[in-house]
Amino acid sequence: MIGPMKYPPHTWDDLSLGEVFHAGPRAVSRADIDTFTEVSGDRTALHTDDAYAARTPLGGLVAHGVLNLAIATGLAYEAGLFEGTVLAFRRVDVGFDRPVRPGDELSLELEVSQLDPRPRPDRGSASFSMRVRNQDGKTVLSGTWTLLLRRTASS
Amino acid sequence: MIGPMKYPPHTWDDLSLGEVFHAGPRAVSRADIDTFTEVSGDRTALHTDDAYAARTPLGGLVAHGVLNLAIATGLAYEAGLFEGTVLAFRRVDVGFDRPVRPGDELSLELEVSQLDPRPRPDRGSASFSMRVRNQDGKTVLSGTWTLLLRRTASS
Repeated sequence: MIGPMKYPPHTWDDLSLGEVFHAGPRAVSRADIDTFTEVSGDRTALHTDDAYAARTPLGGLVAHGVLNLAIATGLAYEAGLFEGTVLAFRRVDVGFDRPVRPGDELSLELEVSQLDPRPRPDRGSASFSMRVRNQDGKTVLSGTWTLLLRRTASS
Repeated sequence: MIGPMKYPPHTWDDLSLGEVFHAGPRAVSRADIDTFTEVSGDRTALHTDDAYAARTPLGGLVAHGVLNLAIATGLAYEAGLFEGTVLAFRRVDVGFDRPVRPGDELSLELEVSQLDPRPRPDRGSASFSMRVRNQDGKTVLSGTWTLLLRRTASS
């Protein structure tokens, strides 16, 4: 398994429209799914009951969609992009495109899609088109994230 | 702490536009934040480093936004609404409106906002306006969820 690519921390001013970043891969384990079940409280049988999940169209147990999203945020963290520059996660709009199964390896692609210098001189809003692919290159999660980032002037 | 309200499982056909459901409350602990840090891999200092977080505008450590979303899915599970009827989480579009701190208690409100009988006779798409409030009644998370639910004919 290849380690994550590392970027220097990016302030809002360091980003350019259309710029693309990559992170991952990271494998999703059954233990991750079990831990997420506990911390979320979402014990839906598709994520906890192998026999039940095997009888559904999914054919077996799958990760919670929000776990896949959580892992995507962890991949972004590991890539180092926003270390010390992120002030808040403002909005997420994502589709859960395909199931993720234990053992799948997820990679993240972020593309800068919108840069808004508001709300203040020391911070700005940055939106990213995001896409998570599995080890076969199939998209499992895609959409948009919006972050509040420090501006260079403030650091 | 009042236990969650319990509903019978709802198929797509059981839902009516404008119908409102409530779930929770549930307290968010520092241990929840630490567990989510591990499973997500998101070690952003705002969620892990008390001294750093105290120096930011937030004034102290806060829960990951996606943890708040995860807890909202757990509250929906605990309410029993979709037990055995949910086939997939299709889409989430939410804003992280306010910080959640250790000890805060979260409650969920879901309102049926759109009902689409596609894609097949045995399953339909249901969208919900969702809102998570803290113990002071302030909104910390709001937006829309879209689920794929069994239809009554198929159960």
